[in-house]
Amino acid sequence: MEAFSDGVFSIAATLLVLDIGLHPPGTPLEQLGRAWPAYLAYLISFLTIGAAWLVHSALTDRLTRTDSLLLRINLVLLLVVAFLPFPTKLVAEGLHDTDAERVFVTVYGFTLLTISLLGWTLDAYARHERLYGPRGDDEDLEAERRDIWPVVGAYVIAIVVGLALPKLAVALYFGLAVFLVVPFRDLRRTLRRS
Amino acid sequence: MEAFSDGVFSIAATLLVLDIGLHPPGTPLEQLGRAWPAYLAYLISFLTIGAAWLVHSALTDRLTRTDSLLLRINLVLLLVVAFLPFPTKLVAEGLHDTDAERVFVTVYGFTLLTISLLGWTLDAYARHERLYGPRGDDEDLEAERRDIWPVVGAYVIAIVVGLALPKLAVALYFGLAVFLVVPFRDLRRTLRRS
Amino acid sequence: MEAFSDGVFSIAATLLVLDIGLHPPGTPLEQLGRAWPAYLAYLISFLTIGAAWLVHSALTDRLTRTDSLLLRINLVLLLVVAFLPFPTKLVAEGLHDTDAERVFVTVYGFTLLTISLLGWTLDAYARHERLYGPRGDDEDLEAERRDIWPVVGAYVIAIVVGLALPKLAVALYFGLAVFLVVPFRDLRRTLRRS
Amino acid sequence: MEAFSDGVFSIAATLLVLDIGLHPPGTPLEQLGRAWPAYLAYLISFLTIGAAWLVHSALTDRLTRTDSLLLRINLVLLLVVAFLPFPTKLVAEGLHDTDAERVFVTVYGFTLLTISLLGWTLDAYARHERLYGPRGDDEDLEAERRDIWPVVGAYVIAIVVGLALPKLAVALYFGLAVFLVVPFRDLRRTLRRS
Repeated sequence: MEAFSDGVFSIAATLLVLDIGLHPPGTPLEQLGRAWPAYLAYLISFLTIGAAWLVHSALTDRLTRTDSLLLRINLVLLLVVAFLPFPTKLVAEGLHDTDAERVFVTVYGFTLLTISLLGWTLDAYARHERLYGPRGDDEDLEAERRDIWPVVGAYVIAIVVGLALPKLAVALYFGLAVFLVVPFRDLRRTLRRS
Repeated sequence: MEAFSDGVFSIAATLLVLDIGLHPPGTPLEQLGRAWPAYLAYLISFLTIGAAWLVHSALTDRLTRTDSLLLRINLVLLLVVAFLPFPTKLVAEGLHDTDAERVFVTVYGFTLLTISLLGWTLDAYARHERLYGPRGDDEDLEAERRDIWPVVGAYVIAIVVGLALPKLAVALYFGLAVFLVVPFRDLRRTLRRS
Repeated sequence: MEAFSDGVFSIAATLLVLDIGLHPPGTPLEQLGRAWPAYLAYLISFLTIGAAWLVHSALTDRLTRTDSLLLRINLVLLLVVAFLPFPTKLVAEGLHDTDAERVFVTVYGFTLLTISLLGWTLDAYARHERLYGPRGDDEDLEAERRDIWPVVGAYVIAIVVGLALPKLAVALYFGLAVFLVVPFRDLRRTLRRS
Repeated sequence: MEAFSDGVFSIAATLLVLDIGLHPPGTPLEQLGRAWPAYLAYLISFLTIGAAWLVHSALTDRLTRTDSLLLRINLVLLLVVAFLPFPTKLVAEGLHDTDAERVFVTVYGFTLLTISLLGWTLDAYARHERLYGPRGDDEDLEAERRDIWPVVGAYVIAIVVGLALPKLAVALYFGLAVFLVVPFRDLRRTLRRS
């Protein structure tokens, strides 16, 4: 289960770069500069997949056994993760066109929301069926669990915001990706210690 | 053998997203909507590869040794799995054109049929050469084995149906993929218990 | 070393499918049929990468240690394996144009030749530096070693043939790929036994 | 951590081949020949990713534990490694146009510089937090560490050179990639011994 999952996560993350291209017309520097939505979309999607992988591997490391339903929930989660390069391309191409960006940013937001909900489902099922070993309730995983509903709420807010102000929603997705990746707890602990 | 196989399965599954694109002309929402055959083809192919990987890893987990013929049968199976993104692209692009869809859906069906027949060959060879350990006949694997001929039969029926009604055949492939992924046995067991 | 190598082999093999496309003009069936060089190139390249991976994993399984020079030779081998999708695309597109096919088939042949020579180098270095464990001279590996010079010779002949008759050279590459993958020894042994 | 990292490294390396294409107009041989910047960019990027992977796996092999900050630094390193195919494509396409090549070669240089700085950060953090086991200061790793600042300095020089003479900078990046991959120490040792 882990080899296939790690494969899909790392391939989906690496395929994102194929959505980046120059944005003519103009000088080479202008074309590079005008491609900023593509860089931003790459950054958000890569960090979000990275954060999802961190949580996913924290979960799967603590499993003592799997069952066939867990493998299937995992498969559906991977299906949505592997789909993310498509909405990423939409955002990368759509942020120059005010008509399109509203639609594309909404699709993007629903994809991110679905990934976090499926991650929650995977964890909830594993707890319900007692598939975790003794480390299934340790501090790290509990901290991840406390984050899930605020994150889901933030995605819902960003989706609603994106219907009126798509560029603000993209900024929110970026902020959320950074929040998910930066380990504030550990940074505080490290800073306090030094 | 497992690292290479898991690699090919997960890459083939993740490459499928490259076949999805907007379908002009129209508003952004219309272009997204008219790309429905691409979403459907992605869904069917991802679930089918996922289901094939589940069976494949159930088989290889139970092997106690391999021989060179098994490695070669496996290689041919991977060759067809890695080929699947091409017929998927054909279906994704062809479902708008009634002339093309008949041909493309048939190619798609033969590819899915070949994958299931090669999976059966792999298992049959491993049993014949006694490459399995004691778990080679356990309940889970026997359940998968009972499914193989009905599934092959369903693919043959869908291929024949697709010659006249390609869209119905696609619906059948979708139903089969869902059937292969949803663990009805386990769901019933779980429901009965709760 | 194995995870990275297996990754490159499996990705290079799976990327080959991106070189396959319809070959207009004509009806859908004609376009599919006229793409035969793409299927053939996919088949040859996939089988050749598969055969190279079989030999590669037979070698690396028997290593008891690595050194930095071996890792670097391996890296150069992977560089050429990962390059193979490009000459594959050339052959896939060039076989309709008698002017181009001579050049492209030659590039293809040199890439295959280089892969087999680098595989030989990897093995020769590992033997010279005594990096193999006790299984480094077992029957299977010795059988692979006996094959290497005939295979190199056959590639050289095919390259020369390809300068005059490129289509015949492609047939030779196909024959070689099949020869490398089909385990004639084991088939004979299995047939004799039954 | 290793499976995901190895995946990203090997996929990013293998995706580089997608940036190679013929460079019309001209005869097939001329088109192949005029694509030389694409081959060179492939070679430099593949060797640089390969060298980065060698150092990365030397580091991670010696870790006895990880913490969440290390995982995040690693994620940012992978984000830049996975981005490399884009500047590689820019260089592959831009070396024919003297106006564009200055800009694209600079972007390329900054990407390579960032990868080496993030590699240094990963190592420095792991040492500071004492995440290494007893082999964390062995001869091989110390040799890699002595190389890092000269390499960073060489990247800075090449970036500055590239502002005036982009083609010379590309030659410097090629020289650096070869220097990073060729194990001069081991070659000398091997030659002295024989």
